[in-house]
Amino acid sequence: MSNAENRTGAKAPTIGVFDSGFGGLTVLRALIARLPRDRFVFLGDSARLPYGSKSRRTIARYAAQSAQFLVNEQGAEFLVIACNTASALALDAIQQAVPVPVLGVIEPGAEAARAASRTGDVLVIATDATVQSHAYAAACRAQGLRALEKPCPLLVPLVEEGWTWPPAATAAQAASLPPQVAVTAEVIRIYLAELTAEADALGMNPDTLVLGCTHYPLLRPLIERTVPAGMRVIDSAEATAETAARRFGQPEAEKPTPTAQVSAPQLRVFATDSVEKFERLGSRFLHQPTGKVELVDLGG
Amino acid sequence: MSNAENRTGAKAPTIGVFDSGFGGLTVLRALIARLPRDRFVFLGDSARLPYGSKSRRTIARYAAQSAQFLVNEQGAEFLVIACNTASALALDAIQQAVPVPVLGVIEPGAEAARAASRTGDVLVIATDATVQSHAYAAACRAQGLRALEKPCPLLVPLVEEGWTWPPAATAAQAASLPPQVAVTAEVIRIYLAELTAEADALGMNPDTLVLGCTHYPLLRPLIERTVPAGMRVIDSAEATAETAARRFGQPEAEKPTPTAQVSAPQLRVFATDSVEKFERLGSRFLHQPTGKVELVDLGG
Repeated sequence: MSNAENRTGAKAPTIGVFDSGFGGLTVLRALIARLPRDRFVFLGDSARLPYGSKSRRTIARYAAQSAQFLVNEQGAEFLVIACNTASALALDAIQQAVPVPVLGVIEPGAEAARAASRTGDVLVIATDATVQSHAYAAACRAQGLRALEKPCPLLVPLVEEGWTWPPAATAAQAASLPPQVAVTAEVIRIYLAELTAEADALGMNPDTLVLGCTHYPLLRPLIERTVPAGMRVIDSAEATAETAARRFGQPEAEKPTPTAQVSAPQLRVFATDSVEKFERLGSRFLHQPTGKVELVDLGG
Repeated sequence: MSNAENRTGAKAPTIGVFDSGFGGLTVLRALIARLPRDRFVFLGDSARLPYGSKSRRTIARYAAQSAQFLVNEQGAEFLVIACNTASALALDAIQQAVPVPVLGVIEPGAEAARAASRTGDVLVIATDATVQSHAYAAACRAQGLRALEKPCPLLVPLVEEGWTWPPAATAAQAASLPPQVAVTAEVIRIYLAELTAEADALGMNPDTLVLGCTHYPLLRPLIERTVPAGMRVIDSAEATAETAARRFGQPEAEKPTPTAQVSAPQLRVFATDSVEKFERLGSRFLHQPTGKVELVDLGG
């Protein structure tokens, strides 16, 4: 356990962050920006990814084991499930498996959509498994919103291939995308055209798009270029960090510090396999080096 | 066990075919075309896919368990490892785990490349894990060939999304690709341009391209449109079936019957998870219905 203390001298809480892979590092980054004095333990269950192609029963078992590692072995006092599939299919199983508060990414995304939407109609893009669970549609309905969801299975591999727009692209770069980034832009255009056509056919008037996958924040500049004028883009990683800061956070931590970084022992990153890929790609998601990623065996 | 008999009255042999997912169904299809009277048992270890992102140790353990299921519980007398990653990283482990002959997909691909190439320089496209293993480069070197390998991680998801060219496309369709298929064509163009530029820089003169992934046969029409004139395209699924027919086959089975189909009890298909995806996508790979996919639990 760390000896990190906050300004008032109290021990900084330990927040456990869990994902099936490393996409959840975008949620961790958003958490660090809001709670830069807390302690973070991240676990990516990379040996068993992707959860998206697996059954609810299998996902629940894997996620519960991962949550128990973070709480029982790493002392996490709060858990953030930074994985849409596990949040959609296994939140109950995780809450039953550990005695600490657990926050998923679905509800904060739906709450942020309610705050953003004037028409009450929202669009959600996500992985196949998240869409099949209809967890966003249910969470939006609970907020009084009507949601239309679309699976976009090519977006995660495009992000992992690095065919994304640099966040700090100049106007000249934006005018002439490299062919790889143009492919990603075209894939986004096709998916959003299909989705808005379907919304039109249903008589919907959507004004908000929810990014329902932790990889998608890296596509946000390309997505914002493509959505119709006036459509709000909700990043569920950002929304989750905001909710976590409110529920678990220290009073002074409300305003995000986008450039905040933390390092060991304030941050420990574990993976169940593929440590190399974690270290290579993780820093793009985390906006800082992951540090040494530690290998852990959860069995199976 | 089946009572299927071949023309001479001898019991038809049972061939076990193993993949981490359902891509290996392209190898099974090629086997059925050459050995339409044999019995086939296919296992897709879909609960633990993709093997490509996992360590050699993990892949060897999963593949050995899968091979033991096919031999010990399903009576397979020969095994075809229809998975490039497992062939590259776990062929020894599988051969030690079961007492029957085992054939992978790498060596047949390299042998077919030697038969096709005049310059002795070949290109290989595959998944990231297959390339990192450099198994094709080693197998080509053993054939006296020089091979340059490139990972193409977007091609599998593009195939699974169905953004492929229909095999029976007319000339008019070919002249005007739908936007989704145009994306796939552009991704192939980018990958092959990067690969040939790298080959040029190394002073190579490649005349043969090996498709080192079981998903890629579904991209073959688009790839053949894109490669430089005169370049031969080797499908390692086809090459593996040809070798299997020679080693395991009955004498009359040498000439392929592309339209051959088999059904239960001559064909049983097992998966460790995601039976729905198997049944939905499998027929596109197998060119016939998979029949009822049976769920099997290998643990983990």
